[in-house]
Order: sequence, then structure tokens, then C-alpha cells
Amino acid sequence: MSSKTRKKKELKIIPLGGLERVGMNITAFCYGEDIIVVDCGLAFPNDDMLGIDLVIPDVTFLKEHRDQVRAFFITHGHEDHIGALPYVLREIPVPVYGTQLTLAIIKNKLEESTQEVEVPLEVVDYGDVITCGDFSVEYIRTNHSIAGSSALAITSPAGTVIHTGDFKIDFTPVYGDTIDLQRLGVLGSKGVLALLCDSTNALKPGMTMSERTVGKTFDNIFADNVNHRIIVATFASNVDRIQQIINCAVKYGRKVAIDGRSMVNIVNVAVELGYIRMPENLLIPLEEIGKYPSEQIVLIMTGSQGEPMAALSRVAQCAHKKISVFPGDVVIISSTPIPGNEKSVFKLINDLSVLGAHVIFQDTHVSGHACQDEIRFLYSLIRPKYAIPMHGEFRHRIAQRNLCLDLGWDKEHVIILKSGDVLSLTNKSAEIVDTVPARGILVDGLGIGDVGNIVLRDRQYLSENGIFIVSVCLDTQEMRFVSAPEIVTKGFVYIKDAEDMINRAGEIVEECMASFEDSRSRDINRLKAEIRNALSEFIWRELRRRPMILPIITEAM
Amino acid sequence: MSSKTRKKKELKIIPLGGLERVGMNITAFCYGEDIIVVDCGLAFPNDDMLGIDLVIPDVTFLKEHRDQVRAFFITHGHEDHIGALPYVLREIPVPVYGTQLTLAIIKNKLEESTQEVEVPLEVVDYGDVITCGDFSVEYIRTNHSIAGSSALAITSPAGTVIHTGDFKIDFTPVYGDTIDLQRLGVLGSKGVLALLCDSTNALKPGMTMSERTVGKTFDNIFADNVNHRIIVATFASNVDRIQQIINCAVKYGRKVAIDGRSMVNIVNVAVELGYIRMPENLLIPLEEIGKYPSEQIVLIMTGSQGEPMAALSRVAQCAHKKISVFPGDVVIISSTPIPGNEKSVFKLINDLSVLGAHVIFQDTHVSGHACQDEIRFLYSLIRPKYAIPMHGEFRHRIAQRNLCLDLGWDKEHVIILKSGDVLSLTNKSAEIVDTVPARGILVDGLGIGDVGNIVLRDRQYLSENGIFIVSVCLDTQEMRFVSAPEIVTKGFVYIKDAEDMINRAGEIVEECMASFEDSRSRDINRLKAEIRNALSEFIWRELRRRPMILPIITEAM
Repeated sequence: MSSKTRKKKELKIIPLGGLERVGMNITAFCYGEDIIVVDCGLAFPNDDMLGIDLVIPDVTFLKEHRDQVRAFFITHGHEDHIGALPYVLREIPVPVYGTQLTLAIIKNKLEESTQEVEVPLEVVDYGDVITCGDFSVEYIRTNHSIAGSSALAITSPAGTVIHTGDFKIDFTPVYGDTIDLQRLGVLGSKGVLALLCDSTNALKPGMTMSERTVGKTFDNIFADNVNHRIIVATFASNVDRIQQIINCAVKYGRKVAIDGRSMVNIVNVAVELGYIRMPENLLIPLEEIGKYPSEQIVLIMTGSQGEPMAALSRVAQCAHKKISVFPGDVVIISSTPIPGNEKSVFKLINDLSVLGAHVIFQDTHVSGHACQDEIRFLYSLIRPKYAIPMHGEFRHRIAQRNLCLDLGWDKEHVIILKSGDVLSLTNKSAEIVDTVPARGILVDGLGIGDVGNIVLRDRQYLSENGIFIVSVCLDTQEMRFVSAPEIVTKGFVYIKDAEDMINRAGEIVEECMASFEDSRSRDINRLKAEIRNALSEFIWRELRRRPMILPIITEAM
Repeated sequence: MSSKTRKKKELKIIPLGGLERVGMNITAFCYGEDIIVVDCGLAFPNDDMLGIDLVIPDVTFLKEHRDQVRAFFITHGHEDHIGALPYVLREIPVPVYGTQLTLAIIKNKLEESTQEVEVPLEVVDYGDVITCGDFSVEYIRTNHSIAGSSALAITSPAGTVIHTGDFKIDFTPVYGDTIDLQRLGVLGSKGVLALLCDSTNALKPGMTMSERTVGKTFDNIFADNVNHRIIVATFASNVDRIQQIINCAVKYGRKVAIDGRSMVNIVNVAVELGYIRMPENLLIPLEEIGKYPSEQIVLIMTGSQGEPMAALSRVAQCAHKKISVFPGDVVIISSTPIPGNEKSVFKLINDLSVLGAHVIFQDTHVSGHACQDEIRFLYSLIRPKYAIPMHGEFRHRIAQRNLCLDLGWDKEHVIILKSGDVLSLTNKSAEIVDTVPARGILVDGLGIGDVGNIVLRDRQYLSENGIFIVSVCLDTQEMRFVSAPEIVTKGFVYIKDAEDMINRAGEIVEECMASFEDSRSRDINRLKAEIRNALSEFIWRELRRRPMILPIITEAM
């Protein structure tokens, strides 16, 4: 980033995650000697990342330019946009900007984290412009499934780039106003270099329904079920959804109790900051629900995705200490399954139904992301020079590209990036000029990045086949065995059913041992290989299975 | 089943699977001394059944009454209705009835199986009535996503029960005619004791679209892409779908090549039996596709569910020996993801898109199961005394029950069964009088039922945490150790990153060993517990992880 670059008025945009691995949203913007970063999310592990807690972005690029990184600008408070902050801020301790609710959630998160971090958290309002070296960043109101969501207008000498964050257009939002279309129009009229736009629903025609329509559905359900207890599960962070449940509780004379750690945390914060309003004495502690007739109770809890340890799942498994479901209870599942969670959610519905609950799960949720018409609207309002579809799987970003092509953008002006691509943007050109590291880093317990492919491959293999361990003690001076083989298996077969087979396996190992002694070889690896091969062949013949076979030779002292 | 029972004209209906575990469809019908069985399906393992190949029904009840079991009547040739036959027929070798295509698929299956089975396979036509002791069974034409599908009218002195099998109402089917509504009406007019009806789509309003609508979509896609190679992935068993692809190939002058073992098998059978018709020389071997311009080729293959080893997945992974995808290729995914397969299918679409293929996956499939209006239609046509929702998760069967209640059936006449329930039906009553074993039996390799909960729990634990093994040799006469501890881990952590930690773990084990020697205890289990506890605490402190810790003590000879 020499002065030559500066003369070219070149902006570099580098998504450090979030494109191949949906969720891990983090994008660096570089101009001259200044770097700012938008969002810093985590991803949840894929099915093949066994035992992994979460995935965080590789910020090698930021660490290498630590002195130039000025700040993080956060669009909203969802995990896929803030979740990696405790890890990344420890290495790059710079100020974090965001709206009030966003920062309150981040503050909570940093306090709960095992990573100790102290950085300035700077609250901004919509319309505020933060100057950061050559950059200025304006916060613009949007609508999404969490309050306080923002688009960012990022201006540098190269021009203005708009990053939508996650958004939808809600003409009748529950809290606050509709996305600031006028401001986006004004920025558009002045000329926008590029639009980085949410692609999540780019495959869905039409417009996403207003959050308020869910409130109407809730009202109908409450009206139809005045004699039943009502339990609602939804995302903890959807404070507008929670507000609407509370509104129904007030209207129909019910008390509200909250369960689930994240739900309790966010409701507390949202009430404190005024994002949720309710009469005094409406909320009651979970312990007190027994004091009221069940038809005067609404329970709001986590677990709408069937997460095994969340409140509603524990209720469905009859494993919740304070809440049981009874026939007649009405359970509203107010979310749609995130891809990968379908079977868990369906299991949850089945389990609750078997307990006699009336489970309502259709038309009880709207998305927080823009569908095709909203995306078309935004492009037509802002008319950016370059379209950069963001936030979505490849198929979603391709779908947004196709929308842009239909609207008349030409191919060269619609840019599909990969994580790690360094996009150089000037008033005249857009070009991928470099790549930087951008693979996800796996976090398992306190270990960050110490579980890699070999470990995961072993876990996968163990999960499907189990392990067959044979241990024997060898006097390496005499090259004679001083113990019989000890066989232990885990995840392989019921030992009681297989005693005879295990005995025969022991005999096979003893044959290997005898022939090793006879051979006068000193090659212990050869011994291990022979045991492994002989056992592998034997078990395949007997059972058509391939457990991991692990010979362990201890050396006699 | 005494003569007293006979006087009561009592029919017993026993679902031996398929209700809790969707897929494993098998239902016994018992009257007097006769038992007949409808379908004999397998289930695919749930996510928590690690390493399991498939799940088959527990037929203890049938084995205990082996002399009374007369025959299997198969409704259609899908795995969830026929897949367990190779296992079950070995124990209960009785004749199997079904339509021509169904039996051809079963024959293939029995020949391929490791289980040796020889029983009569009796082909029936629609309208045929088979007498079996006190039972007579009539085959009735239905529509579904495989040709040759049937409903069964099962008549005994207790009355007539209709089992729909899997069905939809297709007014414009591709092969054969619409479901035989007239015959169902006639049977209904004579009085039907019970209707066992497919619930799969009971949550979906309206009617399922005709299979022929997919043909129109294909035609449009072929017309729009005359300059591109077309690849279609669909279910091998959907011969009508394949026929429609072939029709388009003929119309647009393309050659057809088939890939995927099951696809090749079924197409061969279907062509031989006349279920699929095509001009000579249309089909070409996969090896010859290079001889034609790519725009004159259609490839039909398996893998529409993202199954990792199926043809299309191997293509997407660039791991297929004979087929590569090139930019410009059009890939049609002609199925919707079965619950649990969503992420695999989305990954498939992303991977193919990254390779430059244009992937079409919306509106390219219709279901084979009846939606709400079709279910309402069937109940109103047949007007059975008892409604018994079958085939679907609990939430689907509850949805069918609600449809029945809306249609005017009273609660006592709508019966939700669990697998293993023995339902006693007479003209006057319906009552669950007993239960029989009906849990799924897990098949892993050649082992049937030898992998149970303990083994699965171990596999689950290993998959998330890995294993930490410490082996040491003990002279049990002197109670002195004759080797140093040998530590091996799998699926735990990169050993190179953790050498220091492993060394310290070794020291901890040595401390346990020393204190054991000093204690003069002979309790080896206590030694193991002490090692396990000390290591567990150490590793948790270091890494916040809990690998399975396995101390192995070999005994010195």
C-alpha cells in the first residue's frame, strides 16, 4: 500500500470468511495505510467437524497488518457477525463500533468469554458517521430479525461502498422504522462504487413478509387457545418476536416466564435498553409458574432449532427440571429449521406431539432476509457500479448475480468472490489481485486450531467403526514377550456377543508374537503391521467390519 | 387366537415398524390361524446410529407364529417397503406377492444379497384377488413415484380393510392409468372396516402435482439449453421420471447414457418389462459419450440426494472416472431433499456451481404422496368405519387425524398406533389389546443386532472427543510394574502440538503407578480408576476436553 497505490485511489475489499463457510462473516476494507473490518462472526461446525465447538476466521492478514487496523464496524448482533470477536480482539485490540443493542450483546459475550479482552466499545446511532483514517463509515437503518441492524456506507477516496449487512425491507416493523430507503437513494444519486448485498434469500421470489404478520398469527393462536397453556420457542435474539409474544400475553391476560440462558440474557438487555417494553409484574420467575392456572401462562424459551441442550428440547425429552409438557399444552415453534437442523426440529415436534402437546409450526415465522423483489429494489435504488453478492452459499450468490444480470448489469460488473480474495476496486476497474489465508480455524475446548484434518479423520473413522486395541509387553533386550495380549474394544461390538471372536483374535495375535520371536527381528513397527494385518483380515472375514486396529507394544524395563 | 376369537370375527392389525422409525414399513394382519404381512421395508440409520448400514424390523412376533404366516404382500418396490425382505425371508420363507416391476426389483435384490433366500415370487395384476387361508387380498391400482404401485383390499370374515400403500392421485400419469377410484368407491359402498392411509404429505394443503408437470419443466429446460450438455439426477426407481427425460432426449435429438449401479439396474428391468419405452440406439454406453458433441448428450444418473458415493456426488467432487463437469453444462436435480439430506444436497449444488455448471433444482420434482385434498377425497370416497393414519412421522399422522376429525370422524374412530401395538378390530370395536416387540434392529456389515446402545454411545463419544490410551505392564505376583506407561491417542489432538502435554500426562500416570506400588493394593480396577481420574482432571485443566481415557494393564507372565 505505497503512495503509488494511493494515487490510483484503489480500495481493496477482502472477505476473510463467510463465503465458502456460511456464517463466518468478516470483511476487511483497505485504503492506503488504513484497514477497517466489517463484522467478525463465527460459524458452527459442519457435520464432518466432529467434536468441534465452533469455527473462527483466520485473521493472519489482519495480524500481519496489525498497525493499520483501525476498528471493527459491526452491522448487527447475530453470532455469525460477532461471535469471533472474543478470539480476534485478543490479537487485534482495536475499537468496536455498533448500535446500542449490538454492543450490549457483544459486551455480554466478552464478559462471558474465557478470552480476556478489553477494547473500547463505541455506540453509534443511525446517521452517525465515524471517521477512521482515510475512511468514513455511516450507519444506516435496516430491517432484520434482530433490532439495531445496520447497513454501512463506507467512503474512502476511491468512492462509496455500501455493505447491506443482513437485511430485509419491512414496511411495518415492530420496533423502529422501515429501512432508510431515502438515505440509500441519496447515496445512490451521488454515485456508489459497489454494493455488497445479502444473498440469503436470492432464490426466493417475491418479498419477505413483515415481522408484524407473525404477531397476527400469534394473536389468532392465543385467541383460539384461551384455555390452554402456551409455550413459544424462538431465537433469543429476535427481540421483535419476543415483543409480539409479550403483546399477546398482555392482551390475553397471561403472565410470562422466560427460560434458556441466552433468552434470559437478551431479554434483560433488551428491556433495559428499551427495545422491549412491557407492563411491570408481567414477567414472573420460572419457579412461580405453578402459582397460576396454566391458561394464564406463556413460556418463552430457546430451542426452536431442536438444539439438544436448549430448553424446549429438554422439555420434550422430559429432562427439564422445572417444566413438563401436559396434554392440551400449545407449543408454538416460531422459526424455520436452519439447513442441517431439519431432522432435529422434526424430532422435537414428534416428541412433543407424543406427549400430547398441540404443536404449531407452520406460518409462525418470517425470514429476516430480503427475497428477490427486495434485492431488485435495492439495486434499482442504489444503482452501484459494481455488484458484489455477499452472505449466502455459492448457489445463493449465483442467484443474486442472475438477478443483477436480468436488471441489466453486465457480467464484468457483477463479482463473485471467494473467501480470501483480494478485490482491487477503482473507479475504472475491479480485479482480484491477490489472495490471503481465509480458512476456518477449528475451536475445540480451549484448543484453537490444534484439531486438524488428521484428528477429524480419526474421529470420523472411530465414529463409524470403533477401535480394537491389543496391548502386549515386550522385553526389547531379549526380544521376548513378557505378557499375554490384552484386547480392549470400544464402539466395535457387544463384547458379550463376541467373546469367542475376541478369544480367537487373541490366538491370532499370539501367532504373530510367536513368529516375531522366532524371526529374531528387532523391528517393532513390522510386528505392529503384522498384528494389524492379521486382525484386520480376520475381523473383515468374520463381520465385514473394519475397526481401527491399534497394536500397542509396551517395553519391559 | 382360539375358536372363541374366531367367533368374535376379530381382525388384528400389528404394525411391526414404520411408525416411530419412518421407512421400516411392515404390517401384520392376523385372523384366526392365518397371518399375512404387508410390505417388509428397511430404514436408513439416523444420525445417531454411527457406522450402521441399515435398520431392519424386529420380526420376533412373526417368528413365534412362523407356521401361521402365509405370505408377504408388497405394495410397491421402494426400499422402505421391500428392503428387509432378504433378512426376513431367510427366517420366514413364505411366498411374496407383488406387481411385475415390484417383483423384478425384489428378485434383483435377493440375488445381490449376502443372505441366501429362495421363496416363490408371485406376480399379480391389478384386480387379482389372492386367497390365503381366511384372507383374500385384492390388488388395486394407485399412483406413486414408482410404477406398479398398489393399494390392497384385505378381506377377512371381520370385514374389508384397505391399505393404501404409498399413493397420490395423478389424473395424468405418465405410465398406466389414474388410481382406480371406481374400485375404491365400490368397495366403500359395500362397507370398509378400516382405511390405513399414507400420511406423508398430510401437512401440505391442496393436491400433489401430476408427474407430467415435471415433463413440461424438462421440455422447457431442454428447449432453453439446446447448446449445452444436460445431466439429470433423480431417484433410480422413478421410472416415469426417467421416461420423461428420455422423451425429451428423443424430441431434442440427444443420446442418453445412464450412470449409477441402481439406475442401470432399474432402467434395464423397466425397459425389459415395458415400463420404459425408447427407440433403439438411443441409449449409448457411458464410454461413448465422447463420440458425440456435448449438446447431443443427456446423462441420467443417481445422486440427487447428495449421497457421497453416488454418481453425481462423485462428478461434483471431480472423483468420477468417466464424467467431468464443464462450464456450460446444465445439471438438473430432479428430487427434493429427504429430511436429513438438505445440507448434502446444498453442498452438491454449490460444488457443481463452482465448477461452472448451471444447476437447476427448483420445480424439477413432484412428490409421490397425497396432500390434504387427496386424503380428504379418499376418506370421502371410501368412508371407512375406522381411520388408521399410517406412513409418516407422528406429526404427519396427527395431521391426518385432524383432517379426519374435520371431515366428521369422531375421535374414537381415528386410531393412532405405535409400532408393536396389537390393534383388535371388530365390526363394533377397535382396541389396542397387546404389544409385541417392534424395535429396529441395527445392521452393521454382517452383524445383525450386535451393535446396540452401548456400542453406539461409545462411537458417539469417540467421534466427539477421541481416545487417550495408556498401557502399562504389571507383574501381578509382585505387584510391580515392569514397563513404563505407553500413551497413544487417536482423534484427540495433533501429537506434535502436544508433545509436552503427553510427557506430563506420562508423569502423572507414573505417579499413580508409584503410589499403587506403595499401597500394596492388589485392586487393578482401583488402579485404572485412579489413572483415569488423574488424567481426566489434567486434560480438562489443560484443554477443556474430555477424551475417552482408557488405561490398559497387561499382566506380566
